[in-house]
Amino acid sequence: MSNEKTSRPKARLPRGFRDRGAGEIAAERALIDTIRGVYESYGFSPLETPAFEYTDALGKFLPDVDRPNDGVFSLKDDDEQWLSLRYDLTAPLARYVAENFQNLPKPFRRYQVGPVWRNEKPGPGRFREFTQFDADTVGSASPAADAELLMMVCDALEALGLKRGEYVAKVNSRKFLNGILALAEVAPSKCGAVLRALDKYDRLGEVGVRALLGQGRKDESGDFTNGVGLNADQIAKVMRLFTDDADDLTVIEGYNDLDAIRRILVDAGYCADRVAIDLSIVRGLDYYTGPVFEAQLTFKVKNDEGQEVVFGSVAGGGRYDDLVARFTGQQVPATGISIGVSRLLAAMQQRGLTGNEPPLIVVLSMGDQVRSFEIARELRANKFRAESYVGTKKIPDQLKYADKRGAALVVMEGEDERAKGQVTIKDLKAGAEVSKSVESRAEWVGARAGQETVDRGKLVEKVRELLSRES
Amino acid sequence: MSNEKTSRPKARLPRGFRDRGAGEIAAERALIDTIRGVYESYGFSPLETPAFEYTDALGKFLPDVDRPNDGVFSLKDDDEQWLSLRYDLTAPLARYVAENFQNLPKPFRRYQVGPVWRNEKPGPGRFREFTQFDADTVGSASPAADAELLMMVCDALEALGLKRGEYVAKVNSRKFLNGILALAEVAPSKCGAVLRALDKYDRLGEVGVRALLGQGRKDESGDFTNGVGLNADQIAKVMRLFTDDADDLTVIEGYNDLDAIRRILVDAGYCADRVAIDLSIVRGLDYYTGPVFEAQLTFKVKNDEGQEVVFGSVAGGGRYDDLVARFTGQQVPATGISIGVSRLLAAMQQRGLTGNEPPLIVVLSMGDQVRSFEIARELRANKFRAESYVGTKKIPDQLKYADKRGAALVVMEGEDERAKGQVTIKDLKAGAEVSKSVESRAEWVGARAGQETVDRGKLVEKVRELLSRES
Repeated sequence: MSNEKTSRPKARLPRGFRDRGAGEIAAERALIDTIRGVYESYGFSPLETPAFEYTDALGKFLPDVDRPNDGVFSLKDDDEQWLSLRYDLTAPLARYVAENFQNLPKPFRRYQVGPVWRNEKPGPGRFREFTQFDADTVGSASPAADAELLMMVCDALEALGLKRGEYVAKVNSRKFLNGILALAEVAPSKCGAVLRALDKYDRLGEVGVRALLGQGRKDESGDFTNGVGLNADQIAKVMRLFTDDADDLTVIEGYNDLDAIRRILVDAGYCADRVAIDLSIVRGLDYYTGPVFEAQLTFKVKNDEGQEVVFGSVAGGGRYDDLVARFTGQQVPATGISIGVSRLLAAMQQRGLTGNEPPLIVVLSMGDQVRSFEIARELRANKFRAESYVGTKKIPDQLKYADKRGAALVVMEGEDERAKGQVTIKDLKAGAEVSKSVESRAEWVGARAGQETVDRGKLVEKVRELLSRES
Repeated sequence: MSNEKTSRPKARLPRGFRDRGAGEIAAERALIDTIRGVYESYGFSPLETPAFEYTDALGKFLPDVDRPNDGVFSLKDDDEQWLSLRYDLTAPLARYVAENFQNLPKPFRRYQVGPVWRNEKPGPGRFREFTQFDADTVGSASPAADAELLMMVCDALEALGLKRGEYVAKVNSRKFLNGILALAEVAPSKCGAVLRALDKYDRLGEVGVRALLGQGRKDESGDFTNGVGLNADQIAKVMRLFTDDADDLTVIEGYNDLDAIRRILVDAGYCADRVAIDLSIVRGLDYYTGPVFEAQLTFKVKNDEGQEVVFGSVAGGGRYDDLVARFTGQQVPATGISIGVSRLLAAMQQRGLTGNEPPLIVVLSMGDQVRSFEIARELRANKFRAESYVGTKKIPDQLKYADKRGAALVVMEGEDERAKGQVTIKDLKAGAEVSKSVESRAEWVGARAGQETVDRGKLVEKVRELLSRES
């Protein structure tokens, strides 16, 4: 190279990003295909918006409200306009709908799957690029649209192999929560803190939440979290959310929406064991205006420290009737749910979900590359996954290569075999013990474990037989 | 919203980016699945690197050499490190291989498909985000690795339905071209210009290229392009590339590689009608060190102005033995080919390639949403694509909605039908003429064209019959 630098760059992944290999990619593809199949079957159609949006079009709806101008990857374009990488798939949808409103069927129902980017501090299991799978219905104020999304997410999780009771979709109403806050006369400046406290009900229970609503709470490590400072009467009113003594709450705005969704889900048979009203669900995003959703996995998995923990949230969403109005001034009812693909994948992989990579056959290159290509081509023509070794190493190294690739079978046609019109097939699993100690061609010839020599014309038949034996 | 701006942002796509709808997404998915199937069958495994790399790791290999520091979307990270969005999939691969060299099987054969970003001036059909599908073999200097990539691309194009003669994969050698330049005693400062002139052989022919190598050339519009200024002897030596009088060129470095690739392709039956040596192929990227590839579609398509033009290049690549050495100092032989998915898709769509979206059935919501959900669910359970209308409009608008969605069938269960245990199915194609003039429920009831009422229990059977009639 002409302009080679004297100091070489270091080969390293950027902080908070990762490379992904065949196993995870195949598993994710299987997961996405399954969800897509369900969403398509419900009549949702795909949309793809670009990675970039104009920064002003994205707005400031990022969940991490502590860093309002941060959290987004932004750069200035040639014409001095700020561009940002999308941090979710909802903000671009709002831009798309506002831009194309006249031409869209209403309701407009689309799904989108793709990466989103967050310019946040990375941590264990917390990446700055991850995949979301969203479905949204724009242009319908009907609770049927909300209920449908909840049913569809349940169907998708079951299509992935989860059983009843292993997941639950929860629904609440932001409008209803706001009504409760008004009833308890919570000052507007304190509403955010109250919602964040309610959001911790699952983890802290009633006592913990009461403490957070009042004077504060010391956790197990001794750290003290300041309380919201509500008085006893206010706390009592707010905490009625979690009691059955809620008859007079029905007058609160938002109750009807929630109840309408619930009734549809009951009639459709999705309540009780699949979808539940849960008044502690808050969801972080500022833009929700009515019902909010969350889907949780209820089974335990091992965390990074090997502890068993309930997996928790894998999807969230809700109704955001104001998001399109940001652009047009015209309120457009909209509701959506977003699956965290990377998180759901982690859970499903612990449950044994894998991609469907067919077994690999490596055809060694023994003096005549073209023969090796021919054999591989014949195997491929018979629907096997077969590669011809294209490196320049000798047989023992080729065998090690096949082993490292996780190949199921190795096919060899040496001079002897060729002269006799034969071919040798080595079953790497059966021969694994032996091949580890193989150092030279001579040794290897002696190591017959797991290998068979057959007529060249019987190759495909023998390969089929060996692979079916393994699966 | 609490912080609504007084001036609303404009809803618009960023310059040079685009939204993509269901038809194109489905067609691209079909195309990518087909290529992936072929590449997987050859034993290539997927890899996914992140959208970002450290800027120093990407290097300055962008094709558009006129804007060396430009052409890439870059931004500064919190820790003052420059990040760039990948502009191709090769530079991230080199980083990945350098970072993980010890643990990889050699040769390392991976494919990667995904978006890349170029911060360039957008133009008609020229976007700043587009999709590439790459396959590379790293760690083999064998011409078999190059030949395999060429064969694999041919197989992929044929798997997409292209016939022999509708495409050609071309191969040349950068090393060989450099040898010719040395033989003709071309000054190093002029080599780039000579290669760029040769690259125009397809378009300008021998006379045009000779002019560019000499004193320059006036094109049809009268614009004059300066020539490289070679003398007659030098031009003659360079132009021997395009004659059969090339016997003594066999001594030039690079000839052997090229010939070895050719011989493999001849023996494997890929020469003549699928892969051809073409000494005018240059390929822009600075980093190629040996063979270079290009796959072209040879049939004519209509361009934006409606003119018939040969479609041209859809894939390119070559050998880049120095790219990993940038990081490690250790030369690693590597070769790869990249399909321009967006370009290939445009060509294939003109040939009628479409995604496989199943026909849509819209179940109207007639007073009882739950009945509508039930019918849609029953249809889905029978593998149909069925949505329940979840908006709030009346029947005529629901019918218009179904029409706009391109639905094949509409299912209706009004009060009358429900009382009789029946359901009505409307074939939108058959009834298209009538439904256009439908304005009210009353009119619509009279408009029986293309619709049938059957027993509720016969719904699935009737839907199957109607859809099979259409396909």
